[in-house]
Amino acid sequence: MARKPDEYRPRMERLARGLRREKLDAFLVWDRANTRYLSGFKGSASLICLTAAGGHFLTDFRYVTLARQTLSHLRIVMTEPPEGAQLAKILRRHHTKKVGFEETVPYRTYKAWKDKLEGIELVEATALVKRLREEKSRAELARIVYAQRIAERVLDRVLAKCRPGVTEKELARELLHAIEDEGGDGPSFDPIIAAGPNSALPHARPGDRRVKKGDFVIFDLGVFMDGYASDMTRTVVVGRATERQQRVYQTVLEAQRRAIARMRAGVGGKTVDHAARGWIAGKGFGKYFGHGTGHGVGLEIHESPAQNPQSKDVLRAGMVVTVEPGIYIPGWGGVRIEDMVLVKRSGREVLGRFPKRLIELPCD
Amino acid sequence: MARKPDEYRPRMERLARGLRREKLDAFLVWDRANTRYLSGFKGSASLICLTAAGGHFLTDFRYVTLARQTLSHLRIVMTEPPEGAQLAKILRRHHTKKVGFEETVPYRTYKAWKDKLEGIELVEATALVKRLREEKSRAELARIVYAQRIAERVLDRVLAKCRPGVTEKELARELLHAIEDEGGDGPSFDPIIAAGPNSALPHARPGDRRVKKGDFVIFDLGVFMDGYASDMTRTVVVGRATERQQRVYQTVLEAQRRAIARMRAGVGGKTVDHAARGWIAGKGFGKYFGHGTGHGVGLEIHESPAQNPQSKDVLRAGMVVTVEPGIYIPGWGGVRIEDMVLVKRSGREVLGRFPKRLIELPCD
Repeated sequence: MARKPDEYRPRMERLARGLRREKLDAFLVWDRANTRYLSGFKGSASLICLTAAGGHFLTDFRYVTLARQTLSHLRIVMTEPPEGAQLAKILRRHHTKKVGFEETVPYRTYKAWKDKLEGIELVEATALVKRLREEKSRAELARIVYAQRIAERVLDRVLAKCRPGVTEKELARELLHAIEDEGGDGPSFDPIIAAGPNSALPHARPGDRRVKKGDFVIFDLGVFMDGYASDMTRTVVVGRATERQQRVYQTVLEAQRRAIARMRAGVGGKTVDHAARGWIAGKGFGKYFGHGTGHGVGLEIHESPAQNPQSKDVLRAGMVVTVEPGIYIPGWGGVRIEDMVLVKRSGREVLGRFPKRLIELPCD
Repeated sequence: MARKPDEYRPRMERLARGLRREKLDAFLVWDRANTRYLSGFKGSASLICLTAAGGHFLTDFRYVTLARQTLSHLRIVMTEPPEGAQLAKILRRHHTKKVGFEETVPYRTYKAWKDKLEGIELVEATALVKRLREEKSRAELARIVYAQRIAERVLDRVLAKCRPGVTEKELARELLHAIEDEGGDGPSFDPIIAAGPNSALPHARPGDRRVKKGDFVIFDLGVFMDGYASDMTRTVVVGRATERQQRVYQTVLEAQRRAIARMRAGVGGKTVDHAARGWIAGKGFGKYFGHGTGHGVGLEIHESPAQNPQSKDVLRAGMVVTVEPGIYIPGWGGVRIEDMVLVKRSGREVLGRFPKRLIELPCD
């Protein structure tokens, strides 16, 4: 599980520095992606409690043996659920006055802590671990890129099966098999395969719709590799594209190009979004692009930073963020083109290598 | 998606009655399994707001077209995330003073509501929908049983491949393929296949451990069918069981039998747990049974009621609850036997049909 405790120890140390900066005496890490990030531990029902005296890993009976075997950088404490009295004991032992927690904690857990930790101030401090996770290390980046290479081979294989008569569901099954064959750990989310009018639903589920000549077909897919996700979208047309299909496709493609061109450290996610959105609006399709332009990818398929009109995030070197503008015309069809992009100090690197010209699938 | 709005309308009506009973003016359904239960809608990013004037379904751009097509029993409102100002508008229009919400809501959402809904009291009322979901309708039960029948055929096929030399991971892959072949929608959780000493870890993940002669192997698996989960566990031995293996196995089996025999409407989950736990403790294995005896199964693999030493839940007719005692001896191995049980007015019905005598797999 935690093959390299050395990967996790520095992360805990960076979190400890963040604590001191924020003048917190302790921090409770409940979010599963965050506990995994800091410990490598994949099981649920665990909580990391970081105090000035170091990290404690609280887990229950089901995981305690595994935790003891693998987490050499944390003190393992067997406990009932995270609401348990053990937590109060640890915090009081270290004279905690102010403890940080994550906004993803369910209300139930927050309430239990509030009741059990009387006299200790609970301070929402989600950004602490979130920020750490935004900048990917070389080892993390390698996994994301590896996952993306698999996804590209998978899409190649699925496109070969995309012909009139096949259903979205059959293509989705093919896609899942191909992920396994190509050595992925699994899909990083339920793949979207949406044909014809379904391509106008940005989050359609693969259904019994059969692919028809003239359809746009959207493929939105990702792979998990060693805990890290990839994410990409391509839209193809079955047979020859009409002039309108070409126009919509080229508009999305140019929007993506413009957004990507804006990316580098120091630029706001809002600015990147605006580059794509402004272009699409200028072509008269503004009301058909209703979602954000991109999101971070890592241990989770959606993580910060965000690239959308409301985003206050600013890009930093090492972030991996998608750029995925789209145009969705109800009843007619839609186009989305998505790639992951690595932010660099003075520019960017597009991690997706799959061709972006409009593919017209053969159709006898 | 929502093929039968008639399945969902009565559920909304029962929730409305619950609201009046609890003297709430409105209720916010955020939990995804709950929104699905009340609407059939599978997408994320949606919120049902029930007021005296009926149900509103708030969702964003990505899902609004789909929602309009399928949810005839709810008023569809397009909105930003559930924190959006639309929600405040709806609640104020209906003069809401007290609004219920679920404890599974993330702190972030709770906080946003608290800020946006000034002057409206937020009351945690998780039990309202949870209670409704506990009692399964005949249609729900049929899906659970169907999923269970698939899981049983799957286990048959996997046991046929369980021989010395095969790894846990290979068996897990076989299991996932078999679920697909047998027509399941997918696994209802990551299956547990734990051989030899790994069987002493109640929540082990399938790894590279090879099955060896003399191993206990635990198979904990479930299938999703049309949204509903099944859950079962069997433990087999590879080759001839030793006397100690027989003794541990028979102790768990008798504990399960005793717990099941206690189940009927009106009995506490705590009492059922005690029947299993007391037996195991009486045989001297008390400290090796560290988890609860069972949990409800339905749209989620773990839902209420709970059968454990702390449970305050009381069984009612129509509940589907697992009974899964275990004994886990670190370094040596473990046994768990699990079946879903339907609670009836004056008794119970075991939904799992897979044999429970100790299977000794052939081993050349």
